[in-house]
Amino acid sequence: MAYISSMTKQVVTIEYCPKCGWLLRAAYIAQELLTTFQEELGGVLLKPAEISGRFTVSVGGQEVFDRKREGRFPETKEIKQLVRDIACPDKSLGHSDKP
Amino acid sequence: MAYISSMTKQVVTIEYCPKCGWLLRAAYIAQELLTTFQEELGGVLLKPAEISGRFTVSVGGQEVFDRKREGRFPETKEIKQLVRDIACPDKSLGHSDKP
Repeated sequence: MAYISSMTKQVVTIEYCPKCGWLLRAAYIAQELLTTFQEELGGVLLKPAEISGRFTVSVGGQEVFDRKREGRFPETKEIKQLVRDIACPDKSLGHSDKP
Repeated sequence: MAYISSMTKQVVTIEYCPKCGWLLRAAYIAQELLTTFQEELGGVLLKPAEISGRFTVSVGGQEVFDRKREGRFPETKEIKQLVRDIACPDKSLGHSDKP
């Protein structure tokens, strides 16, 4: 895998509705991502949403998951694949790459 | 307390050394801050440091705690006071305001 300099590392933003109690879920996903992509990500931003019921994940400003659109929360494996595809497409996710 | 619009809300950055295993500590502090300052913060960025042994907390780009300088990790109460002083100086922290 090519070296990813800090200049080009993507930041993942998890925007969650605090009134719905989704901080813990957002923080869990953040820790999963920062464990898997320790070298590849510039960071994960936990952002309280001002719109009720919002739960979205963006990579470098590009939204990759929206709970409202999908009608469900994302699975961890799915979010890792979506982040990987943008932040470090060459990285293998091991067993998280099986469908 | 005056209304803080999303335009002026501060982002807290917690930069941690992933090789030292400090992700969990950083994520814990992030959740404490986002619980206490649910309305006042624009978000908390968890940022893996590229410098070994680094653990710093910044509010809106202004560093308020550096583990190397202090020779210790911050206490939760202390970080809340430091964040409050910049992000929302009028907010009372209740029992976390006692010395």
